Amino acid sequence: MNEAGGYYLEELSVGMSAEFAKTITEADILLFGAATGDNQAVHFDEEYASKTRFKGRIAHGMLSAGVISAAIGNRLPGPGAIYVSQTLKFKAPVRAGDTVRAKVTIKEIFPEKKRVLLDTVASVKDTTVLEGEATVMVSRKADIEAST
Amino acid sequence: MNEAGGYYLEELSVGMSAEFAKTITEADILLFGAATGDNQAVHFDEEYASKTRFKGRIAHGMLSAGVISAAIGNRLPGPGAIYVSQTLKFKAPVRAGDTVRAKVTIKEIFPEKKRVLLDTVASVKDTTVLEGEATVMVSRKADIEAST
Repeated sequence: MNEAGGYYLEELSVGMSAEFAKTITEADILLFGAATGDNQAVHFDEEYASKTRFKGRIAHGMLSAGVISAAIGNRLPGPGAIYVSQTLKFKAPVRAGDTVRAKVTIKEIFPEKKRVLLDTVASVKDTTVLEGEATVMVSRKADIEAST
Repeated sequence: MNEAGGYYLEELSVGMSAEFAKTITEADILLFGAATGDNQAVHFDEEYASKTRFKGRIAHGMLSAGVISAAIGNRLPGPGAIYVSQTLKFKAPVRAGDTVRAKVTIKEIFPEKKRVLLDTVASVKDTTVLEGEATVMVSRKADIEAST
């Protein structure tokens, strides 16, 4: 583990997985809208949202992506990992009160490039709401030791 | 335009583009951390962050992705468009005080599937911080008229 509590590249192996969950509240949707500037009616106007295919207000899709990002940054590989890329397929809406559970699993490790490919899935109970893959860069313990 | 101010599929053409910009404040980073649960030290602990390759605190990468999402939802195709997928390549860090400018451009339209492929780029001044592609679903005006 590095000083911030994240894994070094040498400590990772294919198949390792971790989860991070977050209950999405009305307040979180409000905060996310303020932080990003995305104040669309489908997130904030119940009368409008109730007439859409979603039959009511939904959370921003990118808010669930943020929970995946939190799973990577908080858990696996954890602090110190650098986000390189992420793909996202939005599968189902998330509503206030839903608990979004992000699961990240190591699919492949590229030691030369110090990169790790992760399978990333966010679910609400048994429904997948968001899925994709992430690539992150992770420090090698050997490099840190050689430089100190 | 639909009732929420977004484009119908028939009103879109390849090459159309739109921008949405958001200055990322310290408060936005705090709000984003609270909404997603991503409270990593690199975003909130200046003493830790100053020792990383970023030489100081940075905003969450997914916060810039949220600004791209806002450009799609607020501007093009605008309200009513449904997010299908997004790819993200994180190219450079964003810091409090930076203005993230998201530009979305229509690359391809698939009338049968009612889907639109967009090129999505977020920049801070002349530096690309995030790039990728989005697919969204857009209603056809003809379908709406046929159903009313």
